[in-house]
Amino acid sequence: MKKEIAYIGLGKMGKNMVLRLLEHGWRVHVFDTDQTAVREVVKMGARHLASLQEISRLPKPRLVWVMVPAFVPASAGKPAGKPVDDVLFGRSGLTSILKKGDVVIDGGNSFFEDTLRRAKKVQAKKIEFMDIGTSGGPRGARNGACLMIGGDKKLFIRLKPLFEDLAAPHAYAHCGKAGSGHFVKMIHNGIEYGMMQAIAEGFNLMKHSSFKPNLKAVAELYNHKSVVESRLIGWLKEGFDIYGENLQAISGTVGATGEGEWTVKTAKKMKLPVPIIEGSYIFRLQSKKNPSYAGKVLSVMRHQFGGHEAKRK
Amino acid sequence: MKKEIAYIGLGKMGKNMVLRLLEHGWRVHVFDTDQTAVREVVKMGARHLASLQEISRLPKPRLVWVMVPAFVPASAGKPAGKPVDDVLFGRSGLTSILKKGDVVIDGGNSFFEDTLRRAKKVQAKKIEFMDIGTSGGPRGARNGACLMIGGDKKLFIRLKPLFEDLAAPHAYAHCGKAGSGHFVKMIHNGIEYGMMQAIAEGFNLMKHSSFKPNLKAVAELYNHKSVVESRLIGWLKEGFDIYGENLQAISGTVGATGEGEWTVKTAKKMKLPVPIIEGSYIFRLQSKKNPSYAGKVLSVMRHQFGGHEAKRK
Repeated sequence: MKKEIAYIGLGKMGKNMVLRLLEHGWRVHVFDTDQTAVREVVKMGARHLASLQEISRLPKPRLVWVMVPAFVPASAGKPAGKPVDDVLFGRSGLTSILKKGDVVIDGGNSFFEDTLRRAKKVQAKKIEFMDIGTSGGPRGARNGACLMIGGDKKLFIRLKPLFEDLAAPHAYAHCGKAGSGHFVKMIHNGIEYGMMQAIAEGFNLMKHSSFKPNLKAVAELYNHKSVVESRLIGWLKEGFDIYGENLQAISGTVGATGEGEWTVKTAKKMKLPVPIIEGSYIFRLQSKKNPSYAGKVLSVMRHQFGGHEAKRK
Repeated sequence: MKKEIAYIGLGKMGKNMVLRLLEHGWRVHVFDTDQTAVREVVKMGARHLASLQEISRLPKPRLVWVMVPAFVPASAGKPAGKPVDDVLFGRSGLTSILKKGDVVIDGGNSFFEDTLRRAKKVQAKKIEFMDIGTSGGPRGARNGACLMIGGDKKLFIRLKPLFEDLAAPHAYAHCGKAGSGHFVKMIHNGIEYGMMQAIAEGFNLMKHSSFKPNLKAVAELYNHKSVVESRLIGWLKEGFDIYGENLQAISGTVGATGEGEWTVKTAKKMKLPVPIIEGSYIFRLQSKKNPSYAGKVLSVMRHQFGGHEAKRK
């Protein structure tokens, strides 16, 4: 396939994926309202799209990767919004620009139910649609991400050269029809919530025990052939390295970007119990009013893998 | 140090550790009531102790590793028991055999409160005591375990050649005074409970979803640079390889060996909340009456890393 793609959204994930593709010889056209991010990737060889409309000038079939937030909360004067819908279906959105045979990929963290609705609406215009859940955080985006891919199997096969260049070795797979990429990614994040919470509970107990073990040394030890060896514990160890084991500078309140909540909501619809994922989600909600050391452990892990804000206000 | 040690207990962990030490040039004296296990290691070069009493003939100072179950439930005609207490303090137990300067190590999964009591009692006889939490399962015992070590720091330093030979590279550390090794191991197992339960909830949702993703492929994908990449998911993938994704032959009821319960009990004493670890423990208890697919996912992971029984009865 021709190595040419348009990237909409140059946040911490999108920017790094663009840099990676440029290194792999792709011609990348970028659009973002943040001109600093645009300048940064243009300097490295990306071409600037002054508007989405300019995509219509690219040679057919076009390949467009949408990497914008799934949800923006309401803020001063502005209602809450779903940027993916704006990019796809807004006035001068992609569905009014792209033509039959073009491909649009939602690579962000969309709720799979939104994805099902969008896939139908996009496909009704004969535009091809894929949903890709991307894991590994900004460092993964730069050095090779994990891609969970939903959509037509033939399209998946056609786009393999793209996935080969974006993903870490063997780190992409077709999960099923449209929606399944975001579904498998949502479950991944639900599992992530529970795993992180278990780690936070354990380290909270050690922090307050009379044995006073060196928590950094324990995290390091756990990651040498114990049963709980995991990337998450590796990131916690990194966090202790940088911030010290008291995590003084780190917030005891934990942020959330929606996937835990969606997993719980989906489980309830399916009438399947998820007490561990639900408990982890509730902990985060309650951490707003009850910051704690367990909350700090969670915040620092999120910061290390996801670049999420973790400093105390 | 002189490479000579006595091993009491040739279960799936002890036997493998003995084989590893033999390979590393140790003279190993073994005791177990299971003569099949004894024959197996004697064939590989271990020396058989017909009774604990024979340890008194070994050159001083003696080094004895105790690797027996922390707890044996009551069974037909026999009350529940704590084999470690029998080995240490029973009639013709180790404390009646060993002398000042000898070292006894409890390398099993003892509850740290028992360990604190035992350490005092052993040390009162001028015998040195260490507690070591061992993680990584039978394969870890054979190929290099993870050792969490409690006891006197100078003794720890003196015994480094032993730890170097038993552990995987960099996979041992001093956690603090006596009791801390088993404490840090107990927390490890508490974390393990919660991590496993999160994985089980997530795969249970995928199993019952209309997307029907290939669960083996998803487990494989998650372990390529996603945030939840972990040894546990690797063992689940192995389980799917062997038993198929329906886990037909695997029990939906999950066993437990005590550490989850101890973690919850300890947290209550410390007045610290551990809803995730507690929920995971309760799930296992309830799985006796309510076998489920989530239970199968847990059982197969336990089987793959720990060699725990997992077949349906």
